[in-house]
Amino acid sequence: MPFPYNKLTDEDITYIKSVTAPERVVAGEAIQKEFYHDEMPEYGIFPPDLYVEALDREEVSAVMKLAYEKNIPVTARGAGTGLAGGATCKYGGIMLSLMKMNKIIGVDRQNLTVTAQPGALLTEVAEAAAEAGLFYPPDPGERTASIGGTVITNAGGMRAVRYGVTRDYVRCLEAVLPDGSIVNFSSNVVKNTTGYDIKDLIVGSEGTLCILTEVTLKLIPAPKVTQTLVLAFDNIADCIGTVPELLQTAFVPTAIEFVEKELMEIVERCLNKPFPVREGSDYLIVMYDGASREEVNEACELAAEIAMERGALDVKICNTPERIGSVWSVRAAILEGMKADSEAQEECDVVVPRAKIAEFVTAAQAIGRKYKIRVIVCGHAGDGNIHTEMLRNQMTDEEWETNTQACLKELYAKSRELGGQLSGEHGIGNGRLAYLEDFIGTRMYELFRSVKQAFDDKWILNPGKVVEIK
Amino acid sequence: MPFPYNKLTDEDITYIKSVTAPERVVAGEAIQKEFYHDEMPEYGIFPPDLYVEALDREEVSAVMKLAYEKNIPVTARGAGTGLAGGATCKYGGIMLSLMKMNKIIGVDRQNLTVTAQPGALLTEVAEAAAEAGLFYPPDPGERTASIGGTVITNAGGMRAVRYGVTRDYVRCLEAVLPDGSIVNFSSNVVKNTTGYDIKDLIVGSEGTLCILTEVTLKLIPAPKVTQTLVLAFDNIADCIGTVPELLQTAFVPTAIEFVEKELMEIVERCLNKPFPVREGSDYLIVMYDGASREEVNEACELAAEIAMERGALDVKICNTPERIGSVWSVRAAILEGMKADSEAQEECDVVVPRAKIAEFVTAAQAIGRKYKIRVIVCGHAGDGNIHTEMLRNQMTDEEWETNTQACLKELYAKSRELGGQLSGEHGIGNGRLAYLEDFIGTRMYELFRSVKQAFDDKWILNPGKVVEIK
Repeated sequence: MPFPYNKLTDEDITYIKSVTAPERVVAGEAIQKEFYHDEMPEYGIFPPDLYVEALDREEVSAVMKLAYEKNIPVTARGAGTGLAGGATCKYGGIMLSLMKMNKIIGVDRQNLTVTAQPGALLTEVAEAAAEAGLFYPPDPGERTASIGGTVITNAGGMRAVRYGVTRDYVRCLEAVLPDGSIVNFSSNVVKNTTGYDIKDLIVGSEGTLCILTEVTLKLIPAPKVTQTLVLAFDNIADCIGTVPELLQTAFVPTAIEFVEKELMEIVERCLNKPFPVREGSDYLIVMYDGASREEVNEACELAAEIAMERGALDVKICNTPERIGSVWSVRAAILEGMKADSEAQEECDVVVPRAKIAEFVTAAQAIGRKYKIRVIVCGHAGDGNIHTEMLRNQMTDEEWETNTQACLKELYAKSRELGGQLSGEHGIGNGRLAYLEDFIGTRMYELFRSVKQAFDDKWILNPGKVVEIK
Repeated sequence: MPFPYNKLTDEDITYIKSVTAPERVVAGEAIQKEFYHDEMPEYGIFPPDLYVEALDREEVSAVMKLAYEKNIPVTARGAGTGLAGGATCKYGGIMLSLMKMNKIIGVDRQNLTVTAQPGALLTEVAEAAAEAGLFYPPDPGERTASIGGTVITNAGGMRAVRYGVTRDYVRCLEAVLPDGSIVNFSSNVVKNTTGYDIKDLIVGSEGTLCILTEVTLKLIPAPKVTQTLVLAFDNIADCIGTVPELLQTAFVPTAIEFVEKELMEIVERCLNKPFPVREGSDYLIVMYDGASREEVNEACELAAEIAMERGALDVKICNTPERIGSVWSVRAAILEGMKADSEAQEECDVVVPRAKIAEFVTAAQAIGRKYKIRVIVCGHAGDGNIHTEMLRNQMTDEEWETNTQACLKELYAKSRELGGQLSGEHGIGNGRLAYLEDFIGTRMYELFRSVKQAFDDKWILNPGKVVEIK
């Protein structure tokens, strides 16, 4: 392995300017500080040596050819909205921004797909689909994410209960390999057994195997009707216990989100967004959508019935765009609210089997108490992907560090005990790397390293993420 | 690469008997001839040196440890129903049958999954799901396939239009790596971003990366109502032209199969299974299922309307189990019928974008005429996966060989031109290997080889399939 990497020479920089454009290349101190980290600066602040904006696949390829020849690390960057410390230059080198490669190439109505460059925003892709009367379901909270970023991290989000995650919508990819080769993984076909399924391996590989230059995504007919319910409980056991019952009816909910009152109060206090339900302490926000008003009404009525039997204090049905909007805008503001209400955050993003959600939530709260960490549990209850948020308030650096690490260690052990995984949707990046090998075992970690080697024999692409370089 | 492989010694065989059982180990000439090939003997007849039946993961692991140490090839074998020449001992060595690892471990109603050993039959898994009131959708024609075989080849089948392929139902896998390590790929969770998505890479890897020892598959609520339509046309253009129109309605068909009259006559003549529609020359068999009779009726009426506008001669609605059964049993008998009606078969299993189906079918017929090969086009019109069947009758070996190869070359070129792929569901195995590198390009083929190397550094697992050893 060719570590340590080489530093960029003046000659290298001149070459990169010649294959891109001088005004799209920034060196050293002049690089904006926002590019030193993603949405979780807690997971590392790393200055790139060179910041380059690419305009097309040929520029990406030309930069990679140089990097490969000269043994220089390259990290591709989208909108920087990741939550794993993924899109950062941990070992310096080049940050290659794809945000100027932001065209929506088009919606293909016959094949029911949309094709876009990686720097197009998720919200723009969703709008393009909607304009064609179609629907792009994946919706992580952050809609200003780049579409390439959502693919390379396999973004999940709220609608995964019914519609699945980003991977389920990736029809084919165009990418540049570490040596600069431009390749396609699959094509616009609905099934494919032409050798190894590299496409699905690339989805979620966090920029460590190749750089995306074009994505083609599956669309579905848009649901015609949508409704949201808020189910309010006065204890967590009944609240979470309702989830498996909702999942066993004939109506598949689009989303089932769990939030505690404390979190809603934080969002109201810090961001002035009031939650429309006052009663209770533990809430499920449940969305149904479907082809007809009758079907959705029937689903909501059944869900309300189940909740009341489970002891819900209140069931609020939101059936106007305004009411629905007010509930989901509070949900969407959670991360921002927590950032405003604490000095630092740490997060556990495990996923457990759906049958084990209640057990994990109860354990997570107990673990928080044990280590005197302010812990808020929330997230995608419907698919077992529970976000345990740890908030820092008036603690010394040492206390925060020691206690969050001890907390995380126990949370991960609990997840593994329950048949869960380390990360449900945010990925490994740099932030969870220290916990990975222990979680998946040494043989599997070795296999991950072999896979990295198979794509990136010089280990120059986003090094030190997912797997460590040494 | 450690080629050539070593031959098994008497000592090796004694050891294998000691870690399995003497009555489950057969050597040399005593091995049954059926294990020399799969359902396509045209793709190679290769005698194993040793045939071993494993009972559990530990036995598989013990055999692999020996093979790894001694550098002996191993090919795992399920029911042998593959159509790519995949499960054969191309370089001799050990054939490791998994057919005695055939337990259905159980249906998990809370997580909506079924867990089975790889040698359980697809039909048994489907029955176990049905007994629990649930549904396992993947249904390649061959229901006596082993469930492990369907996973490792990513079997497709008729219902893929609505429900997707086997990969879409694989929740997690247990497998043995070439060095004998027992590992798990994911767990019973509905989303997972814990590092590289190895699970999806394994699905469809045709036994070249690891040996499956347990599979956990997603189930869905069973549809309550199902109906089948036969749409009869007197020309192929109108027939195939109807497909995209059916796909653009709000009702997603479960299956859309295309068959020609000639094929139905073969099945009737050779297997005495009459097709219940007499009029017309080109047929679509369309299945709808859903939650209510009204929904399915509405879907069928709309499909019938579309077909009549497109010039259908007749629309037959099959709404009793007997009528539905009679249509699908004819469809299921196609392969058997063709085998009875010709001396040998060759097959092209390309998949093209759905918008290009008609263009491909027309081209395929012209290519067959050009090379004087009796060509029958049939298959999964709804997902662009067209099977072009070539039947041998009264040709010399040389004519057959030359003409089918020329035919295939043109068919693959056409598929690529239309944005299609080499194989839609049958895989590469040994039978399509000669065409792969040309189709996907040298850089991608190299990448496939690197992936193989990452898992199987001694290239002992099912060598010479998907990628060649040298």
